Amino acid sequence: MRDLFLIGIGSGDPEHLTLAAVRRLREADLVLIPRKGAEKADLAGLRRAIRDAHAPGIATAEFDLPRRDAARPDYRAGVDAWHAEIAAAWQAALLPHPEARRIALLVWGDPSLYDSTPRIARLAGGFRVTVVPGLTAPQLLTAGHAIPLNAVGAPVLVTTGRRLRDEGWPADAPDTVVVMLDGDCVFQGLDPADVSIWWGAFLGMPEQILRAGPLATAGPEIVALRAEARARHGWIMDTYILRRGADRDA
Amino acid sequence: MRDLFLIGIGSGDPEHLTLAAVRRLREADLVLIPRKGAEKADLAGLRRAIRDAHAPGIATAEFDLPRRDAARPDYRAGVDAWHAEIAAAWQAALLPHPEARRIALLVWGDPSLYDSTPRIARLAGGFRVTVVPGLTAPQLLTAGHAIPLNAVGAPVLVTTGRRLRDEGWPADAPDTVVVMLDGDCVFQGLDPADVSIWWGAFLGMPEQILRAGPLATAGPEIVALRAEARARHGWIMDTYILRRGADRDA
Ligand SMILES: C[S@@+](CC[C@H](N)C(=O)[O-])C[C@H]1O[C@@H](n2cnc3c(N)ncnc32)[C@H](O)[C@@H]1O
Ligand SMILES: C[S@@+](CC[C@H](N)C(=O)[O-])C[C@H]1O[C@@H](n2cnc3c(N)ncnc32)[C@H](O)[C@@H]1O
Repeated sequence: MRDLFLIGIGSGDPEHLTLAAVRRLREADLVLIPRKGAEKADLAGLRRAIRDAHAPGIATAEFDLPRRDAARPDYRAGVDAWHAEIAAAWQAALLPHPEARRIALLVWGDPSLYDSTPRIARLAGGFRVTVVPGLTAPQLLTAGHAIPLNAVGAPVLVTTGRRLRDEGWPADAPDTVVVMLDGDCVFQGLDPADVSIWWGAFLGMPEQILRAGPLATAGPEIVALRAEARARHGWIMDTYILRRGADRDA
Repeated sequence: MRDLFLIGIGSGDPEHLTLAAVRRLREADLVLIPRKGAEKADLAGLRRAIRDAHAPGIATAEFDLPRRDAARPDYRAGVDAWHAEIAAAWQAALLPHPEARRIALLVWGDPSLYDSTPRIARLAGGFRVTVVPGLTAPQLLTAGHAIPLNAVGAPVLVTTGRRLRDEGWPADAPDTVVVMLDGDCVFQGLDPADVSIWWGAFLGMPEQILRAGPLATAGPEIVALRAEARARHGWIMDTYILRRGADRDA
């Protein structure tokens, strides 16, 4: 059985890797790198830079990441089909490398957080899977702002832009919410009274932008900043924390 | 102004540190190490091991961590007073080291997650604070079990044992819950129907224990395992994920 190392790489800085991640990468015989066509956001360049920085001699197999058919009516069935295609793309990329016994996949952030790699690895079958954790975008966000994630002893909700848009922020939900995968600044739809935001884009990368303040005033600023940065770079990746109530600066 | 580096160290394995954490530790002039008296759980030994592994020559100031007065009726005021005492203990420990300009504090896990260090640093004042993120216990848990944290596109609640005991697991809360700071296996109070648990103790340490399964059968097993491990080692630290519904193996 082949080993598959799912190595969390943090988000863009080769220094985000843990010592364990570097060791695993060096133990691998082959690194598998996904490409997303012409998109800058495929981050294949960053993965190559990490390979070159930490394991320059390692063999590499690149593959084109299949696209999800967003037109499928059943979201869940569409995701399942897409994951099966990705698993098949891994297998195809490995075909010319029967001698490679330890395969490394460099996973953005941490492999457990809004990332399908552990699930695809299970679907693919035939691998002994080892997960090496990496820093997540929310951790880079709290570090960048030097804030705690939770108010003292309080819970935190981690969710997506889509969910926040569809479900709002109910009164009985936690007062701290981490929002990922939001392409639309969904916070604009919330009542900003007594809410603060801590926002970050390109976290950990040279382009990093941080902004924080009361949602009423910082919100519109962030919308403008985000549009401008996105236009300038051609893509963007951002994450934010919302906190409401008296504990927000705890 | 002095620099204070709050360096996340992961949970027990010197290889959990990121390359950025190692670099910051080496840049520091002094490392500040808290002691909790005779308790094994003070982890001062592990902090010293990390110092010795990565920055053996660095000066060290140890200090006794004040105890929180749990008898105070107002929980929040008690925490505030305790944090102020810790800030004073830092200052006292630094008094004999006026020449040290860059102080490193090794923070268990990530400094943002159920840890008061960033808050105490703000209380203490007089420092330029840099937070260096580290792996959290939940990340070591998902890595150990090779599972995703969230079901596809779904939210996650991060909470404490105390909250789960007091508030239960409402039907409209997320179907995935991460529980930390639970000394009582609070999951025993939940209806186990259709719930799975992924549990880990001493994550990342040589003593690591992992267990997973349907809550109905794995729950009692974990209670017994935990009691036995705690008796054997004299202390324990554990974290778990609960997931309910059809997506639980997603
Ligand atoms: C598919 S998820 C992957 C998350 C990743 N596994 C992690 O642990 O951070 C992508 C989302 O993560 C967040 N994200 C990832 N990298 C980021 C970065 N460098 N800066 C800001 N947000 C980032 C954004 O919210 C983005 O929509
Ligand atoms: C005060 S909180 C600190 C959390 C830490 N800042 C982090 O990022 O993981 C302590 C709680 O973290 C969890 N924890 C920390 N280290 C752990 C370990 N090695 N194994 C299992 N749980 C751990 C336990 O739930 C414990 O009650």
